[in-house]
Amino acid sequence: MEKQEISPQVQELVNEAMSEINRGCVEFIGAEYIQSLVTRFYTNGKTFIVKAGFDPTAPDLHLGHSVLLRKLATFQKYGGVIKFLIGDFTATIGDPSGKSQTRKALTFEEVEKNAETYKEQVFKILDPKNTDICFNKEWLGKLNSVDMLRLTSFYSVARMMERDDFTKRFKENSPISIVEFMYPLLQGYDSVALNCDIELGGNDQKFNLLVGRALQRSYECGKEQSVMTMPLLEGLDGVNKMSKSLNNYIGLTDNANDMYGKVLSIDDSLMWRYFELISSKSLKEIESMRRDVESGALHPKKAKEILALDIVSSLHDLNAAHAAQEHFNNVFSKKEIPNDIPTFHFELGEWICKALLESKLTPSTSQARRDIKAGALSINNEKILDENYKFSQKGEYIIKLGKRKFARIII
Amino acid sequence: MEKQEISPQVQELVNEAMSEINRGCVEFIGAEYIQSLVTRFYTNGKTFIVKAGFDPTAPDLHLGHSVLLRKLATFQKYGGVIKFLIGDFTATIGDPSGKSQTRKALTFEEVEKNAETYKEQVFKILDPKNTDICFNKEWLGKLNSVDMLRLTSFYSVARMMERDDFTKRFKENSPISIVEFMYPLLQGYDSVALNCDIELGGNDQKFNLLVGRALQRSYECGKEQSVMTMPLLEGLDGVNKMSKSLNNYIGLTDNANDMYGKVLSIDDSLMWRYFELISSKSLKEIESMRRDVESGALHPKKAKEILALDIVSSLHDLNAAHAAQEHFNNVFSKKEIPNDIPTFHFELGEWICKALLESKLTPSTSQARRDIKAGALSINNEKILDENYKFSQKGEYIIKLGKRKFARIII
Repeated sequence: MEKQEISPQVQELVNEAMSEINRGCVEFIGAEYIQSLVTRFYTNGKTFIVKAGFDPTAPDLHLGHSVLLRKLATFQKYGGVIKFLIGDFTATIGDPSGKSQTRKALTFEEVEKNAETYKEQVFKILDPKNTDICFNKEWLGKLNSVDMLRLTSFYSVARMMERDDFTKRFKENSPISIVEFMYPLLQGYDSVALNCDIELGGNDQKFNLLVGRALQRSYECGKEQSVMTMPLLEGLDGVNKMSKSLNNYIGLTDNANDMYGKVLSIDDSLMWRYFELISSKSLKEIESMRRDVESGALHPKKAKEILALDIVSSLHDLNAAHAAQEHFNNVFSKKEIPNDIPTFHFELGEWICKALLESKLTPSTSQARRDIKAGALSINNEKILDENYKFSQKGEYIIKLGKRKFARIII
Repeated sequence: MEKQEISPQVQELVNEAMSEINRGCVEFIGAEYIQSLVTRFYTNGKTFIVKAGFDPTAPDLHLGHSVLLRKLATFQKYGGVIKFLIGDFTATIGDPSGKSQTRKALTFEEVEKNAETYKEQVFKILDPKNTDICFNKEWLGKLNSVDMLRLTSFYSVARMMERDDFTKRFKENSPISIVEFMYPLLQGYDSVALNCDIELGGNDQKFNLLVGRALQRSYECGKEQSVMTMPLLEGLDGVNKMSKSLNNYIGLTDNANDMYGKVLSIDDSLMWRYFELISSKSLKEIESMRRDVESGALHPKKAKEILALDIVSSLHDLNAAHAAQEHFNNVFSKKEIPNDIPTFHFELGEWICKALLESKLTPSTSQARRDIKAGALSINNEKILDENYKFSQKGEYIIKLGKRKFARIII
């Protein structure tokens, strides 16, 4: 890139941009290259290419995914055009080793449908104008045997074995199929085909992202993509990473009330991580709030309300966020519910008496039946008289049994 | 294969065939399967498929290659149809890693030309009627990326690493490109495409041949090829394997006189190995000769003459073989040349005075010049007066300087 005179004003904008771009990431390899592209964007409006790959088999996104999506949105502000890459090539061939029962081949229609589902969700965060939804079958499906040999010629066995899981499995004599060596190469080839300037991924993707960088050199693309890894967001429990299977997640399409309530249920310490990774507050604003909480000028609950409003309004809108706040305050008004009541997680369809027993509000399910019949139970401020009540919807429920026994149930 | 009644006559033929098939091989995996196919051939004439792969870049064959070719010819006698496979696929793409300067991509015309050269040579040994010359580009060139992934899914990294050279290089941190894992798989796929019943190769090819066997199982071909490995033939020096670069070889297209003389030059102990691996004598005949030599009933030189006649007549014809014998006896008649004279190897174009010096027949090249001018030198019984004489043809030369100084020179 040719040297250019940069005015102090532009330099300041670039510095701010780089600070937001850097925010929260685990690693950022080749940051200088991105800084030069952001500078170019501010001086002559030229955009650059930002890639992130998504699994076409799992189109249900949650706040964990929004860490990456928000970072992509940040790049859009500073000149990035997003290649939202759906890895349909391997998905439509399934698991060629036939070993994984769960990795069934998707039909073309299923991939299309999942792509639509993705769009509904990601355009809550990304600007559709600067987002290309791409499918790698378009170029990977066209490679012939000679192309494939060329691709495999650019990487050594030893380098591939450096990937943590390969090293581990090779040492443990746990079989690695050669086809598994092909996937990082194909993913890397995507960067060649898309002519990427930067690729983003979860922290566990670092190795694969670097393969793309190396392959761009091998294919003499005239650039080597920068690589940014983002942390995996902890779920509502504050311990495990957010995931659907652990039921500690907030879905991007959850309704506003659920979303608001779930954010308020997280631990105070987790709140700052959510602020950093998935809120629209600037680093300065977050730092200032944090000081206020530490000095006692701001109650942590208030800060969490700000977070909840921010998250709900970005995924729905500000009106919906305020309505959710009002709803929450009505249902869980302070005068009725103690500040810290124990939280329990149950599966969808859980029977109320079992839940009361396991959350230790009652010594037995038969006692629970009697209490319910006697009118002692309310759920989210509504009296429940049906002793066969089951939790048929996901969400957060405040259970009150008698006058003083409370539990927070998350389904 | 259905059970069949086998007459004692057929059983005897099959036993003889299997004995000839087994002859000289290093390993024969799946011999029972071949026995059943030979039995079928004797009972209903049904043929089977025998594969051997050849390098399209090196079409100059020598007696070392004839070990394999003669074995293929043996299979032809017992029902085998030979797939003489020229690996043009990788040859026409060259070395995709670009690392090997020597592995330049061949053009289509070069491959065609080399194939013609192969035909001229191999049909001296093989029956053209039961030989298909095949090119693997025909099917490997048609594989697409999905096919290639499927192929790589059938083999594990650990199994591939068991190949001796891979194990060694991985331990030594000497790089192995992933494309090198592809070659055994592609070679194995050739067996799938050709529906082979047996594949033959050099002893160093065992691993690759077994990949073909494994892939036929993976692709559910309904058969698993047997695998036969043949030893590498020692060259004329009796130590190193026969090779063009070591200049210890007899080319399949050498003229009859050279061929005959070279065979007579080998060591007595090496003679029996040549008898077993590259003569048309039966094992019984060889055993009987060997006993005669050991008992003194047959002079080893006589046995070697039988070998030389056999080899020359199989690559030329019987008349040519006898003519070569006569020529040899005229040139190297016993009364003139001592029984054991020292042998020296020189490069083509070597100057006679240098050769005389290095073979210790003269103390200096100036003395050699004087002796030659004086008429003291004869080469193969012809007086040579040219002190600038150079060895301009490959072959064996008997040098006589004065009355008693002899040397055998091999160019």
